[in-house]
Amino acid sequence: MPNCTITFRPSGRKIEVNRGENILEAAIAAGIHVNASCGGSGTCGKCKIKIVDGKTQSPQNPKLSRGEFDKGCRLACITSCLSDLDIEIPIESQVDPSVLKLKREGRYLLSPRDIDQLVEGWEVDPAVFKRYVELDPPSLDDNVSDLTRLLNALHKEYGIKGISTDFRVIMKVSRLLREADWKVTVTLVLTRKGYKLINVEPGNVLCENYSIVVDLGTTTVFGQLLNLNRAEVCGVPDGMGTFTMAEASDYNAQISYGEDVISRIVYSQRSGGLQKLQEVIISTINGIIETLLQMSGIRRDLISHLVIAGNTTMTHLLLGIDPKYIREDPYVPTANFIPPVRAVHLGIDLGDHVHIYIFPMVASYMGGDIVSGVLGSGIFQRETLTLYMDIGTNGEIVLGNKDWLISASCSAGPAFEGAGIKCGTRATRGAIERVSINPNTFEPMLLTIGRTKPIGICGSGLIDTMAELFQGGIIDQNGKFRRELNTDRVRKGSDGFEYVLAWKEETGIKGDIVLTEIDIENLIRTKAAIYAGCKILLDSVDLGFHDVEQILIAGGFGHSIDLDKAISIGLLPEVDTGKYLFVGNGSLLGARLLSFSKDLLREAERIAHMMTNLELSNNSSFMSEFVAATFLPHTNSSAFPQVTERICEYQTAKAS
Amino acid sequence: MPNCTITFRPSGRKIEVNRGENILEAAIAAGIHVNASCGGSGTCGKCKIKIVDGKTQSPQNPKLSRGEFDKGCRLACITSCLSDLDIEIPIESQVDPSVLKLKREGRYLLSPRDIDQLVEGWEVDPAVFKRYVELDPPSLDDNVSDLTRLLNALHKEYGIKGISTDFRVIMKVSRLLREADWKVTVTLVLTRKGYKLINVEPGNVLCENYSIVVDLGTTTVFGQLLNLNRAEVCGVPDGMGTFTMAEASDYNAQISYGEDVISRIVYSQRSGGLQKLQEVIISTINGIIETLLQMSGIRRDLISHLVIAGNTTMTHLLLGIDPKYIREDPYVPTANFIPPVRAVHLGIDLGDHVHIYIFPMVASYMGGDIVSGVLGSGIFQRETLTLYMDIGTNGEIVLGNKDWLISASCSAGPAFEGAGIKCGTRATRGAIERVSINPNTFEPMLLTIGRTKPIGICGSGLIDTMAELFQGGIIDQNGKFRRELNTDRVRKGSDGFEYVLAWKEETGIKGDIVLTEIDIENLIRTKAAIYAGCKILLDSVDLGFHDVEQILIAGGFGHSIDLDKAISIGLLPEVDTGKYLFVGNGSLLGARLLSFSKDLLREAERIAHMMTNLELSNNSSFMSEFVAATFLPHTNSSAFPQVTERICEYQTAKAS
Repeated sequence: MPNCTITFRPSGRKIEVNRGENILEAAIAAGIHVNASCGGSGTCGKCKIKIVDGKTQSPQNPKLSRGEFDKGCRLACITSCLSDLDIEIPIESQVDPSVLKLKREGRYLLSPRDIDQLVEGWEVDPAVFKRYVELDPPSLDDNVSDLTRLLNALHKEYGIKGISTDFRVIMKVSRLLREADWKVTVTLVLTRKGYKLINVEPGNVLCENYSIVVDLGTTTVFGQLLNLNRAEVCGVPDGMGTFTMAEASDYNAQISYGEDVISRIVYSQRSGGLQKLQEVIISTINGIIETLLQMSGIRRDLISHLVIAGNTTMTHLLLGIDPKYIREDPYVPTANFIPPVRAVHLGIDLGDHVHIYIFPMVASYMGGDIVSGVLGSGIFQRETLTLYMDIGTNGEIVLGNKDWLISASCSAGPAFEGAGIKCGTRATRGAIERVSINPNTFEPMLLTIGRTKPIGICGSGLIDTMAELFQGGIIDQNGKFRRELNTDRVRKGSDGFEYVLAWKEETGIKGDIVLTEIDIENLIRTKAAIYAGCKILLDSVDLGFHDVEQILIAGGFGHSIDLDKAISIGLLPEVDTGKYLFVGNGSLLGARLLSFSKDLLREAERIAHMMTNLELSNNSSFMSEFVAATFLPHTNSSAFPQVTERICEYQTAKAS
Repeated sequence: MPNCTITFRPSGRKIEVNRGENILEAAIAAGIHVNASCGGSGTCGKCKIKIVDGKTQSPQNPKLSRGEFDKGCRLACITSCLSDLDIEIPIESQVDPSVLKLKREGRYLLSPRDIDQLVEGWEVDPAVFKRYVELDPPSLDDNVSDLTRLLNALHKEYGIKGISTDFRVIMKVSRLLREADWKVTVTLVLTRKGYKLINVEPGNVLCENYSIVVDLGTTTVFGQLLNLNRAEVCGVPDGMGTFTMAEASDYNAQISYGEDVISRIVYSQRSGGLQKLQEVIISTINGIIETLLQMSGIRRDLISHLVIAGNTTMTHLLLGIDPKYIREDPYVPTANFIPPVRAVHLGIDLGDHVHIYIFPMVASYMGGDIVSGVLGSGIFQRETLTLYMDIGTNGEIVLGNKDWLISASCSAGPAFEGAGIKCGTRATRGAIERVSINPNTFEPMLLTIGRTKPIGICGSGLIDTMAELFQGGIIDQNGKFRRELNTDRVRKGSDGFEYVLAWKEETGIKGDIVLTEIDIENLIRTKAAIYAGCKILLDSVDLGFHDVEQILIAGGFGHSIDLDKAISIGLLPEVDTGKYLFVGNGSLLGARLLSFSKDLLREAERIAHMMTNLELSNNSSFMSEFVAATFLPHTNSSAFPQVTERICEYQTAKAS
């Protein structure tokens, strides 16, 4: 619950914030522009504000003289709110108040806990679970085999039967049972073929049961460490009495061999290529596992399960399956349902009892990551007609509800993951994730992930920049820079016209951070492919955007994207914004829930079976829909009436 | 159908034989004694007979002078019958005709084909089978994964669903389907968890589907190569237009590390011992596989399945499972039901798709070989109360019918496999398998396997020798040699008194072949343990030997044992001999049938579950029954009325 009010002068605009909130973050979230070039790292000194009234916490900073500090001047990016505040924004940051009424607050990101609750009716009942049993020692009157004794006890105590046994358990069970004085904890896994006994440990170690879930992306690999008993992401103490989540990510090391799935497949056809790609993705995963274990302090042998959701090509490469035919018409994967495979078989650094659950796939370009997203977001449970969009390297869309699901992959390209963009980056520390541009001065306000010096622009930053450039009249509806603007922020660079978001000396890299006209073309093609894909999917079932009752957005955009901005560039359709919900990394979400509940494991299989995939490459209407969408926001302005109206008003306000 | 009559002079005894039958073999089978020391190899020259009338085929031989040959003298061991014959036996071979009436013909061995039919109602429907499918190539309208396409086709064509897939198949399926122009033969295996796709081959190769079955004995390992399509043992052309069966055997190479299971378990507890024992048994199996492939000319990659039946210790050692607790009270095996394991995982030289089916076990001393024997002999199907006895290294007994089965292991020791017997040998070429002793001259008549010079005495030969020594009054009821006999065949050797079956110069080894008093003690202990085990088993269900409706004898005795002789030493109970049936190697028999029929695979599991094992070491009556049985034929002569009567008559006849 927000408990402080900040009033910004001279506009008088008030916003509600939580005590302790950062002023710059609060401002940008509320659509209040304050110049800021260093991403919130406290180094550019541009976000000077004056605290007229109220209490803040803010360190001194070289960019502020002693005199300024004493007069109440602060850098917004390093200042947090401790009471109701009255703040004055310096003239150079101010936007004409007449345009402010057009701004709306737009945060549709649920808390992680809320997101985990999109799926209903499941109980914490992991597919990999431990049970403690105390056995009667054998005697001459009861000398069944040790394994039978153990399985009988599991049946008697817990009603579990038909358990098959991993050979490694058989190898050690006799000695272990005796050493443990017949008191042991077993680990069981539910597979498509029933229960399997994969581990036996001495004594009662029920309290320690963890899993790791991995979203295996073409560009980025994310991992989380889960506590299976508590059905939550493990907490990592931050040394200040609070906890962050045990999660880690890294670039997919395959990037060195190609940016997208097609170039990876091409590389895999070279001699030793497939093996190399498998090696490096395994090493990426091992790195993430290592990080998760180190940050959480959890022992490697306590990890019981590994769940991986990836697109079809990544899954093939992970397993060392030749992906050749994924790329060739008619785009056939080798297998969509992968049998359980032991982690150590792939060279993954986990206990040799750990099995990997690999999310089932649907088609060559509709992978386990999307099945996981559909699972995690609960579409398969609801009557509500839902459009699920995963805007990652490829751009996959799913439409449907509990009764039917159709899907399509848009070949959108990884632009919104920062790939193929001159100063693009993934959503990592230093990535520009929020951008506002003063339509009068063209000066930017930047926020970076981690509030450090900017190193590049991630997905949400790219959307913001595009939208602000377009709204501010810096680029036209074709995405071309207006040449007549009086600002050094727009210039002709080595790749043609570009907008400078941060000057070299303000950044964490050795150069200016810019967005070029070529980048913008690239982003427009991407957003056009996604929009066109949605349109085709809806057309195929004779429905329109306004029939959709819920739109779920998943993808690797920083913490979230600004909905209004995404709509204003035509990436997302203009419908009631209340229908939108951001689910963050949908693939990781589904993998997490599946880890927690064996019912959801069965549902994942069902989802993969029920999903019908449309081949857009085979669809004659797709190209015309795509071309129509390569315009800001869209050739058909009636599809974006509010955006069109707002841009007009904005331009008018500015001109007045 | 016998079609020649041989009349032996001077006794006038007639026997029916087949044209071409060997005279010495025919004589011993009919209980007619002809001195013969070299086992039928034509080298001792003792089996001289005179053809008075009729046609024979017989080569000249250095042991016969030209004059003798011209007068019609022949060596019986190298002479075959071509018409009705009138044969005169020389005086030194003749047995007093008054004892001949006591002899009976006794062969109860069915042909291999008949034995395979002890189990009824199964169809040829192997657990590992091939199916041919022609797939529609993928198109943009039908681009499911290659694996799904294949599984869908198997479902549509053959109604098989729920197939899981071996990872190795996934690795190769895409390329193979295309190279084979979408026409392939798949190999499926039925496991406890359902069907599994284990191989895909290009084109239609349905006609080539083989399996290997192995009886994994403590002393000897037997193997057969089966044609799964024809449900028969593969034939090996013998170069003369006929076929022998593709079967091979070898000593279990673990013998170097101990003769019985206990000494093997002891060895396994040494550092590296378990690994060593596993290594050498695998090498024995590989040797047998190599022999089978070479003799049959069948390619290694055409073998789809390996079925192994072994006792519990051998099975543990094969798999590298520590057998420690099998030996320690209360005698607990690690596991009785073994999950399918791939042959290559154990280092067995077969295609990497080959899974091993390992027969389920019942207890530490009631193994998969016995379950296999019970399966193969059909006990589990019949109302008939059956006693199944496997007289191998250990001596296992099963009693029951289709509704119940109880079993016991007798710790009999491997004496009847020739182990622990001074001149004992397994049933191999040169092993003395048939023995007759002239009660007047004490001269022996020997037949060896392969009719070559004797190298030792195998199980059936040991039974014959014991029985003949006892019947001829050479040993007494305690198994001690009578000292007063006037013959150099009985002498005091380095190990005490002994009977010389063959003199050094008649043998294929560098010494005399003898049976010592210590050997006889050993054999008596063994037969006593087996008899006592049967008695205890019957007592436990309040039944007696005469309630038993069928007695099945399995075990590694040469080609068969002489029933009368086995009864006369008290190894087998004296009941109506019509109840006896020899099934040969019961373990191999069951393994063969299981290979041919998936229904029998399910039955094997059921048998292992339903069998109740009695621990004799825990049974207070066992020791007294054992002691009572350490007498020839038994302390309680009323249990062997006919034997007792016959011995009396025999001794009387001899004395008269």
